[in-house]
Amino acid sequence: MKYTLLTDLYQLTMAYGYWRLNLHERGSVFHLLYRKNPFRGPFALACGLDNVIDFIQHFKFSSDELVYLRTLKNPLGEPLWNEDFLTYLADLRFSCDIEAIPEGTVVQPNEPLLRIQGPLLQCQLLETPLLNILNFQTLIATKAARVCRAAQGDSVIEFGMRRAQGPDGALSASRAAYVGGCMATSNALAGKIYDIPVRGTHAHSWVTAFPDELSAFEAYAEVMPHSVVLLVDTYDTIKGIQHAIEVGKRLRAQNSHLYGIRLDSGDMGALSIQARTMLDAAGFQDTQIMASNNLDEYTIQDLKARGAKISAWGVGTNLVTASDQPSLDGVYKLSALRDEKGSWQYKLKVSEDPIKVSNPGIHQVRRFYLDGKATIDVLYDLALGITEAPRVILFDEPQTEIEVSDYDRYEDLLLPVFRQGRLVRPVESIHALRERALRNVNEFLDRHGEKPYAVAIEKNLYEKKQALVRDARARNENV
Amino acid sequence: MKYTLLTDLYQLTMAYGYWRLNLHERGSVFHLLYRKNPFRGPFALACGLDNVIDFIQHFKFSSDELVYLRTLKNPLGEPLWNEDFLTYLADLRFSCDIEAIPEGTVVQPNEPLLRIQGPLLQCQLLETPLLNILNFQTLIATKAARVCRAAQGDSVIEFGMRRAQGPDGALSASRAAYVGGCMATSNALAGKIYDIPVRGTHAHSWVTAFPDELSAFEAYAEVMPHSVVLLVDTYDTIKGIQHAIEVGKRLRAQNSHLYGIRLDSGDMGALSIQARTMLDAAGFQDTQIMASNNLDEYTIQDLKARGAKISAWGVGTNLVTASDQPSLDGVYKLSALRDEKGSWQYKLKVSEDPIKVSNPGIHQVRRFYLDGKATIDVLYDLALGITEAPRVILFDEPQTEIEVSDYDRYEDLLLPVFRQGRLVRPVESIHALRERALRNVNEFLDRHGEKPYAVAIEKNLYEKKQALVRDARARNENV
Repeated sequence: MKYTLLTDLYQLTMAYGYWRLNLHERGSVFHLLYRKNPFRGPFALACGLDNVIDFIQHFKFSSDELVYLRTLKNPLGEPLWNEDFLTYLADLRFSCDIEAIPEGTVVQPNEPLLRIQGPLLQCQLLETPLLNILNFQTLIATKAARVCRAAQGDSVIEFGMRRAQGPDGALSASRAAYVGGCMATSNALAGKIYDIPVRGTHAHSWVTAFPDELSAFEAYAEVMPHSVVLLVDTYDTIKGIQHAIEVGKRLRAQNSHLYGIRLDSGDMGALSIQARTMLDAAGFQDTQIMASNNLDEYTIQDLKARGAKISAWGVGTNLVTASDQPSLDGVYKLSALRDEKGSWQYKLKVSEDPIKVSNPGIHQVRRFYLDGKATIDVLYDLALGITEAPRVILFDEPQTEIEVSDYDRYEDLLLPVFRQGRLVRPVESIHALRERALRNVNEFLDRHGEKPYAVAIEKNLYEKKQALVRDARARNENV
Repeated sequence: MKYTLLTDLYQLTMAYGYWRLNLHERGSVFHLLYRKNPFRGPFALACGLDNVIDFIQHFKFSSDELVYLRTLKNPLGEPLWNEDFLTYLADLRFSCDIEAIPEGTVVQPNEPLLRIQGPLLQCQLLETPLLNILNFQTLIATKAARVCRAAQGDSVIEFGMRRAQGPDGALSASRAAYVGGCMATSNALAGKIYDIPVRGTHAHSWVTAFPDELSAFEAYAEVMPHSVVLLVDTYDTIKGIQHAIEVGKRLRAQNSHLYGIRLDSGDMGALSIQARTMLDAAGFQDTQIMASNNLDEYTIQDLKARGAKISAWGVGTNLVTASDQPSLDGVYKLSALRDEKGSWQYKLKVSEDPIKVSNPGIHQVRRFYLDGKATIDVLYDLALGITEAPRVILFDEPQTEIEVSDYDRYEDLLLPVFRQGRLVRPVESIHALRERALRNVNEFLDRHGEKPYAVAIEKNLYEKKQALVRDARARNENV
């Protein structure tokens, strides 16, 4: 996406306001975080940063975009902004610092996935695209990790393009699904753009294009003898398996083999058991049984529990749309702004709902480990600092203060990505991101299972926050 | 999207198979349809055709895409396809006929939204992108129509980009939401690309960037005096309304006015009633009260039922992700294929599930009207024809055969879009599509309310289908 205009109009309206009031270049800090783990699960998997980087590297209003902005009018029919502002936008180049948690890292609510520091106007304009990209890919990578976990090491292939939310709903989802653990996608363009393995054989239309199923299977084996996966349910699944076995025998005679069959309807638990028996009896112990048709982590778990003999899973719509929760609740909050003298003023949004009170300051997340496994994450402020055995307050239990001392190492999760607009993060291949995700998820689930993870706020920051909430309420009352 | 590779790999695999077997230029007919109305509602709203047209007008494999295809290998490490096939793809140009139901038309399950006729290879390649585009936009236009209906004529503005499914999940959704009845979007890029009105004022970060709420409101009114909508819940909603009224009084003194306030949290029913009382008492009867925060047709209905004094609705995530059903179940089925002699052979996919048995033939949909209102839609085959008082079988009640004679006019819904690859459909503005949608939805709901609509299959086609199902089963058994 090379469109700097990919943002909400109100970001531009506020940008104009900041510019008019000469606040636009004030230093500011925003954090991007989410509030609740998706799918009632115990974690999320950070994803989308490379797309954020790509977006920011193309951050520059095009002349087309400026022409469009010039056409916008207020209710009196006057231009919404003056020409000097549009000139400012034309010359605008990204110059912020960004730190982010690397893709494929297990993350928790209340932890910033990304921190941005720089001129207020730029940080404000970037709110919507950063949320759009990171919310969706983090959601889908997390869903993919859940689906792959349910598949217990079997191959999972993402098949979702036809019912994804638009062309990019498909592309972004294919990328995130791969990072989250899928082994391939059906989406040829995603394969090209993101270097993801692609897979696919044939559809029902192939079978119906021939006079009967057996001749369709034979034709397929003739043209693609080395990757034959036959879809067996166009007319009758059992008969379809028999036809596949016939073709498999001919392939064997040619020193090739029947790679797999695919089930796409009916009771796939029972059918797979029957298919396995039939294939084994005919000497096709190596032939894979693949399943597709409205799968997700719950149906896969259920099929596994019922003894299904399925060794590869094609997962589509429910994965790429995250059907049981199709959005992540990520937010982007101003947490510090320089005053006229250049000193940081910490900022927060107050709310009657405690979860919606944002955290003031300039944050880092420290993850503590014991015996190689993460035990607790602590949000702390760079200026207020953190000690070697910090006292912290749990986000989920604000009454509970504990000391973090039982660890053998820690790491800070937010790593530099941009410095004054320049990319400083080394490029990682998508395969490395996927490896990190697999390792992170396995470590997390081995240690914590389905229990939520402890996330805490460092005590000095917590106390600063309480003081600022009191202040903000008092100041607001007194006006 | 200018990417011809935006398709499933198996479409390319099948294309290769057809090409190897010299079936690739056989005339074929596919229909795109869905099986169940979304959201348990009584209709869907066709949407996305202009994006299909755009995709097809750019249909041409780029040299980049061909280079990528050349890199794909089979499990033996050999190229997946030969060079002659890639040359064929390089020279391939779209040459099919397409008929489609115009955007903004109320549609029903089992009716083709689109029919494509042309060389088998081309029709096959287009399956995935056509489904991707039409499934999603039809889903979102339908959702928008439901949300706008619940708002009973109040303005609805689409706000969803930040939690949409990727950049295009936002853009496509903004377009479809406008066609479905929204009056504007917050998405500036969608405004530019699709000529949709854009709206937006300020966020919580504007308020927190200032020392207190009142000074933030004053600053906003100073820079944007003619479109002041103030978000009042950053610290305390009631206090926020008081601050908005103070600013409104100053605006009045300058001959401007307070256009609106926005509520974004809390009990918006009670708060809106209180806000209305406060605003009216201060002489701001014309000031709008806008609400946002996890809205959809159900919450809007509920707020209306509780007497909420809200006159404009900002609807985001639940609209653009269609959160209660994030995908439409559209399918794309081969229904006719020419044989060696050039005669049409009708095709269908059999299934134990009757709803999954596809309809053979070359279809048109006839909508019958009485007193200006649609009464029944009939699927018929162009070769088998339809009489002036056709006998039909209801899709939902296959035992019920009726005669359609109680009508005063009819129209055929599928209209020409492409003829032998050339666009023949006049361009309609997005505003005309939206007008059609509003008219169609109002007519439908006035006549039918929430009851499902009668959709039937013409009797000759029905009998042909039954005969083909028997044939297909018998042929398959005998192999």
